[in-house]
Amino acid sequence: MKLLEDRINRDGKVFEGNVLKVDSFLNHQIDVGLIRELGREWKRLFDGENITKILTIEASGIGIACITALEFGVPVVFAKKTKTVNIAADVYTSKVESFTHKTVYDIIVSKEFLSEGDRVLIIDDFLANGKALEGLISLCEAAGARVAGIGIAVEKAYQGGGDLIRGKGYRVESLARVSSMTVGGGIEFAD
Amino acid sequence: MKLLEDRINRDGKVFEGNVLKVDSFLNHQIDVGLIRELGREWKRLFDGENITKILTIEASGIGIACITALEFGVPVVFAKKTKTVNIAADVYTSKVESFTHKTVYDIIVSKEFLSEGDRVLIIDDFLANGKALEGLISLCEAAGARVAGIGIAVEKAYQGGGDLIRGKGYRVESLARVSSMTVGGGIEFAD
Repeated sequence: MKLLEDRINRDGKVFEGNVLKVDSFLNHQIDVGLIRELGREWKRLFDGENITKILTIEASGIGIACITALEFGVPVVFAKKTKTVNIAADVYTSKVESFTHKTVYDIIVSKEFLSEGDRVLIIDDFLANGKALEGLISLCEAAGARVAGIGIAVEKAYQGGGDLIRGKGYRVESLARVSSMTVGGGIEFAD
Repeated sequence: MKLLEDRINRDGKVFEGNVLKVDSFLNHQIDVGLIRELGREWKRLFDGENITKILTIEASGIGIACITALEFGVPVVFAKKTKTVNIAADVYTSKVESFTHKTVYDIIVSKEFLSEGDRVLIIDDFLANGKALEGLISLCEAAGARVAGIGIAVEKAYQGGGDLIRGKGYRVESLARVSSMTVGGGIEFAD
């Protein structure tokens, strides 16, 4: 999506350690007008999928998911991160390995809010190695809900997570796919 | 706001330990249509205030803040919670005492995203003892930004945080003010 690629080119910052900072418009300060355009694009892409629920993960996925949910007219559910493995009977839980922080954390969703009849659109701001996304998919599987699609704002295509998830048969629509980036240099996008 | 009070009466659950669960529509699953109505109400209430930015705190404030920001046509900034006191030169920071978890955590906002010219509307889902809100106000003060208003979805009026903040001269508009609640009993609202 050209609008998002242009914005990343203009305001994104590349740092050492494979870090792309887009916190002036996506995940610390949020340009809600831009996000509405992303939401409309996902609505166009997944319009035939009869989405019943949007699933995301705290914290930076929530704003994007909520604005997108307005376009679809469905509720959002956000998975919560927790370090205390508090296995409660009333939640679905999944483990996620954080590449950035070298830790493992649990994500949980209340069983009340994800069920067999659901056709879920998963929305998140970033996709890199795909670990968080695998966790969200696994919550849907545990609930017997169908993952009808996955919408990502920025995919770091060269980290392989997107290809891994697509290889499992899921439809992943990333609105900007970064193919390479260099500190002080440019950011390149895949088609 | 009758719409919100009715919804709390219908779907809110009261548990031991002064817990009001509204996680089926406000802070785990999110009814974005309801939130849009809250956003429109805050827009009506704060319309003359020339709001330039909406400030909230992760995680459950973000969705409400983003949908409200669409009504105002301004960006959202969300303060991040951190346990590692990583005093960086480029962030404003404030300490918040968690009554629920008996801990102290830091909240931070990048200096880039809050500045002297800003007229800030603070939005959050809950107001109880007011500690998180005091932290957010203090971030604005550090930035020299003006707190032009505070919009809260659910205020537990009997816990005193709202009165404390109002006593300091801030305008707090809570769309539902719980005056009392009992386990297995009813939920009463203040005017």
